Formats: sequence, C-alpha cells, structure tokens
Amino acid sequence: MILVSDNLQITNSTIEQAVNRMNPEPVQEMVKKCVKAGAEAIDINSGPLSRDPEKKMAFLVEAVQAVTNLPLLLDTTNPKALEAGLAVSRNTTIINGFSLEPVKLAHILPLAKKYDTDIIGYLLYPNSHVPPDEAERLGVAVELFSAFQKTGLENERLIIDPIIAPVMWDNGTLQDMEILSVLRNLPDLLGFPVRTIAGISNLTTGQGPTKKKRLLEQSYLPMLAAAGLSMALLNVFHTETVLTARACRALTDTKIFTWENV
Amino acid sequence: MILVSDNLQITNSTIEQAVNRMNPEPVQEMVKKCVKAGAEAIDINSGPLSRDPEKKMAFLVEAVQAVTNLPLLLDTTNPKALEAGLAVSRNTTIINGFSLEPVKLAHILPLAKKYDTDIIGYLLYPNSHVPPDEAERLGVAVELFSAFQKTGLENERLIIDPIIAPVMWDNGTLQDMEILSVLRNLPDLLGFPVRTIAGISNLTTGQGPTKKKRLLEQSYLPMLAAAGLSMALLNVFHTETVLTARACRALTDTKIFTWENV
Repeated sequence: MILVSDNLQITNSTIEQAVNRMNPEPVQEMVKKCVKAGAEAIDINSGPLSRDPEKKMAFLVEAVQAVTNLPLLLDTTNPKALEAGLAVSRNTTIINGFSLEPVKLAHILPLAKKYDTDIIGYLLYPNSHVPPDEAERLGVAVELFSAFQKTGLENERLIIDPIIAPVMWDNGTLQDMEILSVLRNLPDLLGFPVRTIAGISNLTTGQGPTKKKRLLEQSYLPMLAAAGLSMALLNVFHTETVLTARACRALTDTKIFTWENV
Repeated sequence: MILVSDNLQITNSTIEQAVNRMNPEPVQEMVKKCVKAGAEAIDINSGPLSRDPEKKMAFLVEAVQAVTNLPLLLDTTNPKALEAGLAVSRNTTIINGFSLEPVKLAHILPLAKKYDTDIIGYLLYPNSHVPPDEAERLGVAVELFSAFQKTGLENERLIIDPIIAPVMWDNGTLQDMEILSVLRNLPDLLGFPVRTIAGISNLTTGQGPTKKKRLLEQSYLPMLAAAGLSMALLNVFHTETVLTARACRALTDTKIFTWENV
C-alpha cells in the first residue's frame, strides 16, 4: 500500500495564494513536509481552476517536480489544466481521474492514452452519484473498464477508486464494509490484478470530533489494507494514521517480517 | 466484536499470590480495573493449577463473580479445575477451550455438554501444533466441528479460535493474513453463523519494541473485525487498542452510525 499525500490542495489558502502569485516556495515547502511525513506520491489537487487553468497547473507541476521525483497525481476536473500538467510533467504521472460522466469519458480519459499514463477511474454513476451498494459498484466497475479498454491502453494502467462513503451518510458504514468486498472482488471480476486507490478523508467528511475522526481513519485503513488496497490517499500529517499504514504494510506484505518495517 | 480481557492471568505475580493465599481482593481489584477499561467478558487464565486445582479455580470464579455479572471464560487445560469452576459459576460461562488433542476431546469437551456452556475450539492439530496455512486450518475446523457435534450440543455453542501466529514466526504475517480469510469462510464451511475469538497478544509474542507491538495490535485488530471476529481477547489496559476496537465496532456494526459509538 503506497501512501499518497492529499495535502497539496488549492482549498488550502496558503497554496491558493501561492498559485495566484505563481510563487513556488509555499508549494515546495508543503511538498517537502509531505515527503518527510511519509508521502510516497503527491496528489496535486488544483480544483477546477476556472481562470488560467493551463498556466496554473503547469506552474504547480513544475514547482512540485523541482523538489521531488515522487509520482504525481493530477487531480482536477478541468481537461485543459490536466493536459497542461501532463505536458510538463517529468515524474511518473497518474490522472486523477475519470468516471462514466460523459464529459470525463470524452475529455479526460483520452489524455491517458495521449500521454501514456495511469488513470484513476471512480466507481460513480454517469451523473456522479455514488452507487448505493456492492452490486452497483461492481456493475459500474465493469462499465468503467469497458470504457477504459476502448482507449487501447494496457489494462494495468487503470486504477480503481471505489469512493469511500462518509460514515455520516445514512448507510455509510454499511457501504464502507461493502467496499472491502469490492476491493477483494475486483481482480476476479475484471480478470487482472486491478490496482485500487481510496481517499481516506472521505470517511469522516462533515462535522465530528477530531480525535474520533482519526480513530475511525486508523481503524478503517487496516481494513482497506487487508482487502488489498494499492494506494491510500490521505493527510500524511496525521502521524498516527501514517504509522498505522506502515504497520499494515508490515503485516500484509509478503516480505519477511522485521521490526524495522513497522 | 466483544472485548474479553486477558489480564486476569496466574502468570501475573499479584494474581498468583492472591490465589495461593486465597485472598480475593487483588483479583477483584484487577477485574474492576478491567471492567472500567472496557472489558465485556473476563478470561480467567488460571494456568494448569498443578496443586489444589479445584479449590483454586472455584476461588477465582467466586472472587470474580462477586464483583461482575460479565461472562467468564474459564481458561485452563486442567479438567478438574475447569469442572470446579463450572460448578460454582453463576455468570454466563465459556470453556476456553478444547482442541483435537485426545486428552482435551476426552476430558474438556464433555464438560460443555454437562454444564451446557459455550466452548472455544482451537484450530490446532491433535499434537497441539499450529496448522501452517488456510487449507489446513479449515481442515482442522471441519474435524473440530465433527468432534463437537458428537456432544449433541447446539452448533451455536461452538466458538472457534483460529490461533493468531506471532509475526516473528517465519511465515507469521502470511498466516495472519490467511486467518482473515479463515474467519470469513468458516460460516459457509460449517453451515452456521460460527462465532470466533482470537487472542490478540499472540501477534506480538516475543521480543520487540513496545510501541511497535501496540501499533501492530492496533492495525491487525481492525482487519480481524472486518473479517467478522466475534470476540477479541486482549489486554484491555492497552487503551489505544480498546479505542480502536470501539471504532471498529462503529464501522462494522449494522447500527446507524453515531459519534457516541466511536
């Protein structure tokens, strides 16, 4: 399980200001902190970037790759911003991501082929709603894979995000338990060793006491790890969660156990 | 997932002295602390009790049930001690436990029928060795269930302990991952909603840094919870592990999520 930092977000006002002023330093400080905290890949969540999308995403990618060789996830719904980022990226790059939404199939998915990158597919309906149960998630996975295959990319380029349900949703925890089964069943269903990613912070979206949110995060992450999750997108400044993730890796990896790996 | 304290052990010198002097107070202090820390059942691990087994186990059970109505697990390999405990127990009682070892089949298992109690069956070979993989564990489960059925007790009286492998064993972590699959498969294999129990401290038996041991415990417990573990036998004084267990319960329970349950 690879740890992907979700910390570099345009919703962070320091990052937003840095982007608006094209000042790479705050972005680079953030990335260095993420790496120090245990990030093994960096999600660049630029938001939709309604003004100067190309310039801003290119700036972000350049700023980040000046300080790290880690893989980058380009996280935007704006195809123009995405393509500008892909065009300048020298690190391993993953598009984050597409879904069955027609505009994403038309304008995001083809960029994976054009730039020969991995791409994350979300298990969402074409209208971006979250499927309510395991059967529906698996059904969407089949449709998503079918759309993906039309690009001609190798199957292994597809990474699936089952979309963690917030626990505060009516049947959120039930969905989150079903997601574990989705993760276990995807390889058999699609016929190849499907990589998967999940955004851990989704679990505790909304109001709630911080300490309990962290506890839920630290409790759900091992469940995901045991179900075979390939990449965890998380706030790497949540130290206990990162330590838990490492302990999970020591348990789930096929390597010989050593305390150094915990 | 019910939390069973493993704290009341004859290997604890305070408890050993209390038993030798037939002084209930230190035993009761320990039990009260366990209840306060979150224990929902109390394992009374008396050891084999080579001298005065009946008297000592009866003393322990009487001492404990004087301060709690929680279910008791009578944890001894000595059939005489076990029977003496069963004879005086007024709380819900679970025998912990039997295996395919001939002496246990002959002298422990029949006591479950005689006293109409739940009984824990260990997935161990007749020579008490640990089966090396999932297929062998499931094979032992079938044999154990078959032996259990001969008592005429209801299936639901059987609780299975898959025997967690210490991570320091050559293939310990691999076995521990397979145990998750064992837990998931037991109900289908045996044809009823099999309850299960696991001794969490087994995971980190042996030398190792305490903080990392706790991290492993906190990481493996959610995996067990997601696999459907019914009862976790653990040191309830490991506060973070108990908090993790509660968070797991909030995630895995079918109840509507509330922060109060975390």
